[in-house]
This record gives sequence, C-alpha cells and structure tokens, in this order.
Amino acid sequence: MEKINSLQNVHVKAWKKLQTKKGRKQQGLYLLDGWHLVNEAVKAKVSIKTLLITEKQLATEPDLTHFPALIEISEEVASHISATVTPQGVFALAVLPKPKTDPLANLDLSRPWLLLDNVQDPGNIGTMVRTADAAGFAGVAFGTGTVDIHQPKVERAMQGSQFHLQLISTDLTDFVKLLQAQGKPVYGSELNDQAAQYLDIEAPASFGLVMGNEGNGMSAELLALTDKNLYIPIKGRAESLNVAIAAGILMFGLYR
Amino acid sequence: MEKINSLQNVHVKAWKKLQTKKGRKQQGLYLLDGWHLVNEAVKAKVSIKTLLITEKQLATEPDLTHFPALIEISEEVASHISATVTPQGVFALAVLPKPKTDPLANLDLSRPWLLLDNVQDPGNIGTMVRTADAAGFAGVAFGTGTVDIHQPKVERAMQGSQFHLQLISTDLTDFVKLLQAQGKPVYGSELNDQAAQYLDIEAPASFGLVMGNEGNGMSAELLALTDKNLYIPIKGRAESLNVAIAAGILMFGLYR
Repeated sequence: MEKINSLQNVHVKAWKKLQTKKGRKQQGLYLLDGWHLVNEAVKAKVSIKTLLITEKQLATEPDLTHFPALIEISEEVASHISATVTPQGVFALAVLPKPKTDPLANLDLSRPWLLLDNVQDPGNIGTMVRTADAAGFAGVAFGTGTVDIHQPKVERAMQGSQFHLQLISTDLTDFVKLLQAQGKPVYGSELNDQAAQYLDIEAPASFGLVMGNEGNGMSAELLALTDKNLYIPIKGRAESLNVAIAAGILMFGLYR
Repeated sequence: MEKINSLQNVHVKAWKKLQTKKGRKQQGLYLLDGWHLVNEAVKAKVSIKTLLITEKQLATEPDLTHFPALIEISEEVASHISATVTPQGVFALAVLPKPKTDPLANLDLSRPWLLLDNVQDPGNIGTMVRTADAAGFAGVAFGTGTVDIHQPKVERAMQGSQFHLQLISTDLTDFVKLLQAQGKPVYGSELNDQAAQYLDIEAPASFGLVMGNEGNGMSAELLALTDKNLYIPIKGRAESLNVAIAAGILMFGLYR
C-alpha cells in the first residue's frame, strides 16, 4: 500500500484544497471524514475513488473490500486535511457528482422540501438536513449564497442524512415557482404583519418551507413569492430561536 | 485606566483560569464575553466587578458608567482569555453567585422546567436554555454531570437567556421528586417500549421535561422515576435527532 507521511506531498496539498469549493470543482472530488460517513456512503453506493487511512485505523482490521484504492497516511496528514480538531483517521475521496443541467428535473415532490436561503453555518445546515431526514422530508434545496453541500464541515454535520434525501443546489426562486406551479404551497419563516402562527396552518402532504440567513432572515425577493409566512410564538424573553431549532419545530409541526 | 498587555501578567493568568470550574470557584468570578452578554447582564443587574476592554472597543465610545472598574487589555490578552476564536474584545468579570444551601427553595413551579441530565456539549446546552426561554419555561435545572452553568462557552451560547430564566444546579432525582410531590408530571425523552408519542400527551400548565446525554440518553435511575417517556416519531432514515432539536420540538409541542 502506498504511504504518504509528508505535508509537502503533492497529493496532500491537493486533498487540503478539497476544503474549498474551487478545489472540489477542479479535482472533481470531495472528502468524507470518519467511518460513520464513509460507511453510509458505501451503503448509498456513492462512487469512492480512494480511501485514506492511518496505521492506527488499519490496525482495527476494517473491511476494505469496498474501496478501489487505498493510501496509508500519517496522523499528521490526517490532521492537516481534516476540518475537525481530532479526526478519526479515515477519509474517502468521493467523486463529485456532475452539476445537473436541470437541477429541478426528476425531483420527488410528493413529500415536503426544505429550502435554505443564504444559510451560513455548516453546523446549522447539517443539523437541518438531518432533521429534515427524520421528519420524512423528500429533500433539501441549497439556494445561492447558502454554504456548499460538499463543504467538509457540512458533510460531517449531516451525519449520513445526505445519503437519505435528495439534495440540490439551485436558484430558489425557480424552485419556489416550480412547487407553486404543481399546487404545493411554499411557507416562509419570517415574522411580519401577515405572518400566521404555524399551528394554525393545515399543511398538505407536500409543501416547501424556506429558512433564511441566521442574522438577516429570508431575502426580500423570496419572501414576496411565498404563499404564507409562518411564525413560532415566543412566550419568554428570548429575542429569537436558533435557525435549526426553528426549522425543527416547523418541520415536525407542519408535517405530522 | 490600568492597561494590561502581557500574557505573563498575573491577572491574565487568573482570568484564563475562569474557563475552569475550579478557577471560577477559587476566584468567586465568572467571565461574560462580548457586548451582547455584558449588556444583558447589566440589564439583569448582575453584579459585575470589572470590565475588560480593548483599545478598539474603547474607540467606539461605549457607555461605561455601569462598571465599577475598567481595565484596558491588548488584543492578544483578549484572544488568550476568550473561549472563542475571534472575541469582540470586551469581557465582564461577574461575581459568581454563592451556591444555595437549598437549590430547590423559591423556585417558580407554575410553569414548566427543563432538566438536563449529563448533557455535555456547551452549544447544545446554551441552545436548549435559549429555546426554553422562548418557549416560556420557568427554568432549567443542570443535573450532576451536566456541564457547569458558568462555563464560558455555555454562557456564550445562552445568548442572554441565562438572565431571563431560573437556572439551578442540583441533583435531578431530588428535583423530580419535588415536582411530583407538587403534582407536576415529569416526562422523560428516551425511546422504549412504554414510550408515548409526544403529540398524544395533554401536558398540564406545569411539568418537567428531562433531556439526556448526547450519546447515552438519560440515566437509568432518572428514567425509572419519570411519569412517562415521550418519543418523537422518526419518519425518515435518520438514526436520531440532535438533542437540542429534540428538546425544541418537545418544549414547543408540549407547552402550546
């Protein structure tokens, strides 16, 4: 098995660049960090090019039959290419799916979708995808401005739910119009004079729910397009809810 | 105004130790990091001993009349004593409340309480306190094993909600028994054969809700004491919900 120990190695430099969108695009790859994600990817038949693994992880005698190529890496290399402080020591180089010419084709619109409008925090994004999975949603649409699906911290926070749902990157205006053209209502989540209490809504079997930016909320353009804006009644003195908490309450509240 | 620039300064070493429970106990102080928290503490009439502030923050000409003492610190000192990567450059040294001889005296039991059983992640804890505030809960009880209330990352994640609710550190068994003695049901949140779907419960105006450890759930002892265990139905293929998301869904679902 090939061994790579040096941070100066040209491959290591390339792997490090997979933390950026540009690097992923140039190499056509993205990084899955840790056994849980790697195993979920194998189960989901994600195309994996190479498994990177430390000596310590090799010593646990894992099943390596699913991987077309293996490279042993040092702990130092593992720390360098990981977005986490204490990586497990196993990474898959997965093949980046080609951008679809029409991201809105072949979507399951029979169940609800979560739309992320300019959401920035990888932890929030990952948690919302995981919650959408648990709530039985069909998919999550990453709008322009929202952090990239294949950013390593986002991949990690999704904890495998990225392989259970349809995830698309798209212009949300187009997607909202598509949903509405098919008779599915789209709900915003910004408090304004016209907002309705979320428990007063009888949501149909399929709909869209838009969550906005952590600080600034939804974009005005998208807000104007929604069928209704929903609010969660705040009883105490907290100024707001964390966006992932609000998404969780709305998803489980609307889709029972 | 006194100026402190060196990481070797004896005060700086002491402030750094406020990140540990031992340090806070020895000095009788805890640290509030950033204007939002400091201002919320002032509003809540928290006893503040000293404000630490960088030259950059002083240049914004903030209102400093609320603080009995001021010390100017360098950016380097600010980074050293903060638990965040990019601190704002303002910290309050707040007086640690004396541990109550009876933490269960004088509690508002007319509204619900959230009980944290061995919860470990400061971000989860802070988010749950903030959500409990928004949901109109009376307070949050930090059980033995749960991260300390005054840990800087917990303080920060609570975003001011620590000043809106009653927060206590206590043995949760005692607290559960107190709630039950007063006729308030206590709900667990562990999936088991006897668990009830949370939407099937008609919760009264006051109750206790216990959230357990991120990996291991509630302690067996506490679980045995609860009046009912609740579960959130998972429709998709996610294995579980993040503990703070589950807490948000349960708090808003039970206390409408």
